[in-house]
Amino acid sequence: MYPASIPVFVRMLGNLSAILDKAAAHAEAKKIDPSVFINARLAPDMYPLSRQVQIATDLVKGCAARLAGIEVPGYEDNETTFPELQARIGKTVAFIQSVTAAQIDDSEERGISLKFGTREAHFLGQAYLLDFVLPNLYFHITIAYAILRHNGVELGKMDYVGNY
Amino acid sequence: MYPASIPVFVRMLGNLSAILDKAAAHAEAKKIDPSVFINARLAPDMYPLSRQVQIATDLVKGCAARLAGIEVPGYEDNETTFPELQARIGKTVAFIQSVTAAQIDDSEERGISLKFGTREAHFLGQAYLLDFVLPNLYFHITIAYAILRHNGVELGKMDYVGNY
Repeated sequence: MYPASIPVFVRMLGNLSAILDKAAAHAEAKKIDPSVFINARLAPDMYPLSRQVQIATDLVKGCAARLAGIEVPGYEDNETTFPELQARIGKTVAFIQSVTAAQIDDSEERGISLKFGTREAHFLGQAYLLDFVLPNLYFHITIAYAILRHNGVELGKMDYVGNY
Repeated sequence: MYPASIPVFVRMLGNLSAILDKAAAHAEAKKIDPSVFINARLAPDMYPLSRQVQIATDLVKGCAARLAGIEVPGYEDNETTFPELQARIGKTVAFIQSVTAAQIDDSEERGISLKFGTREAHFLGQAYLLDFVLPNLYFHITIAYAILRHNGVELGKMDYVGNY
């Protein structure tokens, strides 16, 4: 469970951080108000860039805490600038790196419940990671990338997936 | 290795297939030429919808075959309609379901080489799945979803991630 969660999260949040750095640099070079990117959406009823970053970080702090059986840290969701979004990513990485392999390995069968409005979903640890956290995490990081690409920031696939 | 690959691929390709069905139905209801969606892109230098589906299916047939140590099936990449894209997804699902857990489990340490133009990348099986196949697969399915959302097809997050 550990190799499929924490190291993957750390790498993908690092890639997201680098993507946001490129967007901030692009805004500065082109004299575009950074809030144009922070508030950009791909459709009127999709979330803006800032919310994509908030949800991506929520997913991984929630996953690390729930698999380890510890309390999920609460964040205020008040980020409105690139430095604030970077700070959120930074504190998320610090938190998930504080969770050890020993705490997470063997959590395949741990029961995990999530509330979605009035509905509650129940998972075992492995399905929670593979069927909920990973697809959603990749979704929100990809949408963040796509919002910026759609708005002209020069990014490539390697910025998303990292070097290998 | 098996639970993190084949069942995940089958579920996500099923979600992608259902998303494309909704797009085809939307095109028919609104009397929009389906090729408008098939050729739609989020940026001029991003791939259109059809190529997103081709790459997503390439990733999973390549992964299933390489982890099992068998030949990767070759496809022609000539799909230009929704039924053709659905047929490609269907034959991909049939292929990956023909690969058994016994063939894939214990492939964590299998050496896998991929060519990117003139460059070659070397992975062990686990890193190939976790750091290459899954992030790229989710990327292309998310971009397919985002292209359609951006073009007004009524989809929600549950169409992407499936029910749980």
